[in-house]
This record gives sequence, C-alpha cells and structure tokens, in this order.
Amino acid sequence: MKGLEIRVATEDDIPLILSLIKELAEYERLSHEVVATEELLRDSLFAQRRVAEVLIGDYGGDPVGFALFFHSFSTFLGQPGIYLEDLYVKPKYRGMGFGKTLLTRVAKLAKERGCGRLEWSVLDWNDPAIGFYKDMGASPVSGWTVYRVAGETLDRLAAGR
Amino acid sequence: MKGLEIRVATEDDIPLILSLIKELAEYERLSHEVVATEELLRDSLFAQRRVAEVLIGDYGGDPVGFALFFHSFSTFLGQPGIYLEDLYVKPKYRGMGFGKTLLTRVAKLAKERGCGRLEWSVLDWNDPAIGFYKDMGASPVSGWTVYRVAGETLDRLAAGR
Repeated sequence: MKGLEIRVATEDDIPLILSLIKELAEYERLSHEVVATEELLRDSLFAQRRVAEVLIGDYGGDPVGFALFFHSFSTFLGQPGIYLEDLYVKPKYRGMGFGKTLLTRVAKLAKERGCGRLEWSVLDWNDPAIGFYKDMGASPVSGWTVYRVAGETLDRLAAGR
Repeated sequence: MKGLEIRVATEDDIPLILSLIKELAEYERLSHEVVATEELLRDSLFAQRRVAEVLIGDYGGDPVGFALFFHSFSTFLGQPGIYLEDLYVKPKYRGMGFGKTLLTRVAKLAKERGCGRLEWSVLDWNDPAIGFYKDMGASPVSGWTVYRVAGETLDRLAAGR
C-alpha cells in the first residue's frame, strides 16, 4: 500500500502507543482490562531480556526435570508476564512434589520481576497435567484462539504474496 | 520438597536441556515435531532481546495503527518465534491494506531473525479479524489450551501455598 510508512517506535512514542492500546481495547470491548500507564510502559517495554531462561532441578546430583520460560508482555496490563514453554519432571521422579516446586519457583520469579501473569499451554488430552494445574489455582483462558503461520505460509506472508 | 536443588542453567547445560526437551516431547507424543539441535539452542536460547518491540504505521504524518510483538521460543523447533500481542488499525484507515502491510512487515522480521513461527491470539467473536487472518494463510492452533495464574492466585502460588 503506497503511502504507509512503518517505523520502529522509540520511547518518545509511549503516549501514542498507550492511546492506540486503549483504542484497540475499546474495539475489543475490553477497556475495563486496561490498567497500563505511560510509566509502566516506560519501565518495561524497552528493557533487555534473555530470549529464554532455563531452571534445572537436581536431586542428589541427578537432573530430575526442568522449566523453560520466556517473558511475554501484556499491553492491557502494561507489564511483562512469564510464559512457561516447558515444565518437565522425569517419570521416576514424579509424585514427589518436584513439579510444584519448579512451578512455584517460576511464579516467585514472576512476582520478583513485576509480572502480572504466568501462562502456559496444556495438551487437551493431558488430564494428569490439567488436574495438577487446576490444583495450583490455574484457569483455562477462554474466548481467545491462537493463530499461527509457519513454514511456507510464513515465507509467503513475509514476501507479501 | 526437601532435597531438590533448583539452579539456573548455563550454556554448559545445553546437551542436558536438549535431552530433557526430547523426553518431554516423547511424553507429549510429539517427538516428530522436535527438530531442535544443540547448535540451534546455543545460537538463540541465551541471547539478549528487547522485552517487546513496537512498529508504528504513519500515513501522511498521521499515526494509523501499530503492531506490538515480542519473541517467543519453541523448544521443539529450537528457534525463537514472534508472538504478535497487538495489531491495530484505526477505524477510518481500515480497508486500505494497512493491516496486511503491518503484518507482512512483522513476518519479514520473523524470517530475517530466523524465527520458525509467528503467532497471535484472536477473540472468538471477532469474525472480521478471523477472516482477515485466514486470508493471510494463518491457521488456528488446536489441541492446546492456555492456562493462566494472575492476581491473588499468582501471589499464592509464588508463596508456595
């Protein structure tokens, strides 16, 4: 489309970004969820983070499992969140509370870093995991569906075709 | 749980991390999706990134919309991805192809940065957006549900209660 200039936003754009976030929330009928402020956006939006971080659980010198997470960002909250990509405990170490210990550690990091939420995805057939997460107080996020482009579809979209 | 030591992984842990990712994939019956290698993990897992990035569309000096995204990380692909948190075009500028131009720019960045996927969430009632995204070649991700802890539930989990 001729005439549209796309530029990378800087910190000077924060008031503009916040006004656009509020317009989007209004369109999505979710204005009541927007608590973001210019200060919150300034504090965290332009900071540097690691792509992902990994915590490893050791028991008597043996690795028993891991948690791998990265930071998300909620424009409505104006805060980073944590997305837990993987939480895994080896079969022979299950039932010993290690999964809960790893998840608790990640939740603690989320609080220490001023995150508003901790999220992850669960396979719909995985009843033991779903039961475990519900016991931890987690709720399924409803009303939203994730869409994806990957592989050739991503190539095509990137090429503007 | 007494006895479990949780430590922050370093680059020396990459072989261990990859083996745990593969075990998790096996448990999830998704081993066929794992293409991660030690090299891929080394290249991207420990890099630094901005928390989030914002692109602003200007038309004749007027801001018409924005795209806000951050990097995700797929352990199965061993690659970062892009998660598009917000894509917004002001009402009076809709139907001019600006949304597609912004989305194409984000897809191009994803390719330039070696990302395996580009994802975002759509409200289930938002038929115009769903139609637009399907036209762009995007597919809904099925079989997974996002779970969340936030607010008091996050406080409680972080406190180990």
